[in-house]
Amino acid sequence: MRILGIDPGLQTTGFGVIDADGASLGYVASGTIRTTHLPRGDLPARLKTLFEGIAEVRRRYEPEAAAVEIVFVNTNPQSTLLLGQARGACVTALVTGELEIAEYTALQMKRAVAGHGRAGKPEVQEMVRRLLKLPGLPGTDAADALGLAITHAHAGQALARLAGSERRTTGMYRAGRTF
Amino acid sequence: MRILGIDPGLQTTGFGVIDADGASLGYVASGTIRTTHLPRGDLPARLKTLFEGIAEVRRRYEPEAAAVEIVFVNTNPQSTLLLGQARGACVTALVTGELEIAEYTALQMKRAVAGHGRAGKPEVQEMVRRLLKLPGLPGTDAADALGLAITHAHAGQALARLAGSERRTTGMYRAGRTF
Repeated sequence: MRILGIDPGLQTTGFGVIDADGASLGYVASGTIRTTHLPRGDLPARLKTLFEGIAEVRRRYEPEAAAVEIVFVNTNPQSTLLLGQARGACVTALVTGELEIAEYTALQMKRAVAGHGRAGKPEVQEMVRRLLKLPGLPGTDAADALGLAITHAHAGQALARLAGSERRTTGMYRAGRTF
Repeated sequence: MRILGIDPGLQTTGFGVIDADGASLGYVASGTIRTTHLPRGDLPARLKTLFEGIAEVRRRYEPEAAAVEIVFVNTNPQSTLLLGQARGACVTALVTGELEIAEYTALQMKRAVAGHGRAGKPEVQEMVRRLLKLPGLPGTDAADALGLAITHAHAGQALARLAGSERRTTGMYRAGRTF
């Protein structure tokens, strides 16, 4: 399954694409979509850049699922409002068509990638590099986005294990009823 | 010029379409896009509904300009984040293609429609009804959206007057240089 991870931000949105085949993970692509070249006050133009950038990534790599970071309230309420709008533009670029969308917090991502929720950015970068066998460290935004894609791959495996045990349970239950 | 006004909200987004020909304003359509039938926690589905609803309004009425309300920070930061995402989805539905986008605060809209910034919702509804010669009161969200479209029509007239006086000034200046 091909998974697209998105770390939304108004100035820089990170993206990362991986292929997950059971426990095996393969790197496909990663990068950032920046709006810093646009006038700060032209919010529609900045949202357009994010939307079109993600739509382009989606067209190029054709992911089957997307994992988007759940953003949190900032200490500055105005920043919260801007981050919200950026995330709205990113999610909107993903909801058209058949793409499955999952949402994870940064804490869930850090736990999935580094094994604990206190991991700083360098630790996330290093763990993403190891898990995907990259020749060098990805940038921080791209690493977070790849981390989200990895989190979704792990969640998919956990669900598959759960479905497997449920199937067995159902089988036992049926056996109990029939005999 | 056909203008689409948008009053963004996560539960209910109002839209209103008018035709402006100089000082003459004509009602075309108005209504709301609701997401209240969707699970509260399924934010991607709610953003998709807003995006697709506005895209559909745009396709149907083919406006040349859009006026979107500038939203403000809420007392509840979590609501601010959700409202931001809703607005991001709405603006994103407008930025593709050639549509011109303007942004106005609720205060600017109230001044343009009711003549003062302290106008409550019933006064905005009544003034929009009179300005567009509607047979009945529009709903509050649709009235705000129609008010934003009217605000943009007024701003366009003001700009046209300004351009007219600038042209005259330039003419005078040129005359001064030539003779």
